[in-house]
Amino acid sequence: MAKLPKSILDLTGYFERLPGIGPKSAARISFYILNAPENFSKEFAESLAVLKERVKICKNCFGVSEEEVCEVCLDEKRDKGVIWVVEKAIDMMALENVGGIAGVYHVLGGLVNPLDHVGPEDLKIEELIERIKKGEVKEVVLATNSTMEGEATALYIKKEIKDLGLEIKISRLGSGLPIGADLEFADQATLSRSMEGRREI
Amino acid sequence: MAKLPKSILDLTGYFERLPGIGPKSAARISFYILNAPENFSKEFAESLAVLKERVKICKNCFGVSEEEVCEVCLDEKRDKGVIWVVEKAIDMMALENVGGIAGVYHVLGGLVNPLDHVGPEDLKIEELIERIKKGEVKEVVLATNSTMEGEATALYIKKEIKDLGLEIKISRLGSGLPIGADLEFADQATLSRSMEGRREI
Repeated sequence: MAKLPKSILDLTGYFERLPGIGPKSAARISFYILNAPENFSKEFAESLAVLKERVKICKNCFGVSEEEVCEVCLDEKRDKGVIWVVEKAIDMMALENVGGIAGVYHVLGGLVNPLDHVGPEDLKIEELIERIKKGEVKEVVLATNSTMEGEATALYIKKEIKDLGLEIKISRLGSGLPIGADLEFADQATLSRSMEGRREI
Repeated sequence: MAKLPKSILDLTGYFERLPGIGPKSAARISFYILNAPENFSKEFAESLAVLKERVKICKNCFGVSEEEVCEVCLDEKRDKGVIWVVEKAIDMMALENVGGIAGVYHVLGGLVNPLDHVGPEDLKIEELIERIKKGEVKEVVLATNSTMEGEATALYIKKEIKDLGLEIKISRLGSGLPIGADLEFADQATLSRSMEGRREI
């Protein structure tokens, strides 16, 4: 923006780089912060500065944690026999927010994507297989996205697990119409999945 | 969110307080920052921390500046005889972005709003009158929002200027259909304004 003080332009530039924030929102946010109490921007800045120092990767499930091992992995009430495999830590949080998951997680750190040169060896798949080899795993839920990359990654992992020759249940998240959705506006692929996955009531 | 490390929760909380950012976007942004290079979050934090120290209020027009007087007021090419009166500094930036304004600004710092206990004495109206009294002002554009509060503030200021008994042109921004808008969906008040303000072509 023309004629804005450099410090406002700089801050607006950082906000613009964040996902989902355009130039106008970024400027609006900068002015909001300018008008907010001094301690708000100071504490916000402090919180931002320490984030990457404080947050570690859980050495067991590769989720996020401030300790070596995350809270979920440390939780004695969790069933270590059921592993929910997700792409990234935020997906783990989305599932946790729903509640009711008695198992533990495994964060892959991405999805197989040949166009972006991401192969299975770039993901935490070997580490997942090692966890399964230890023997107490009964079920693996491949909770990757319902996209080409998510499906391909799930299929690859399924094959790797099958190759172990163990008695393990492998599943995917259910596909179909989102709750509240209008059948008329659903895409063909979703509708086709919901037809296959119809359930008796 | 359940089971998230405190440092992520804290940062997400700050982002949630910003205008236009909901809880899901805030969490997404926190994870984006977690995955961004270390210097991004450090520099972002620094920029946030210094903002309120660096930005001052221009003592002439009450816009934002890193100096005592803002760039627009210092600009010798600007016509000091035309003052564009706006509610807040970001409105000044919106007009500057359009370009073509040869005059200067006056930032009121709010609008008259009895429900929020904001009276004319809480705004920089007296300071505007003082600027006008100095004698070189030929036109005042009351560029406040096209809302109840914006109109009321403009009317109040118009009366104050008239009371000076000087030969000054007072105007408001034009009202009507936004460019690209569909007549069919316009509200009655806007349509009525656009009918009154019809122009010969």
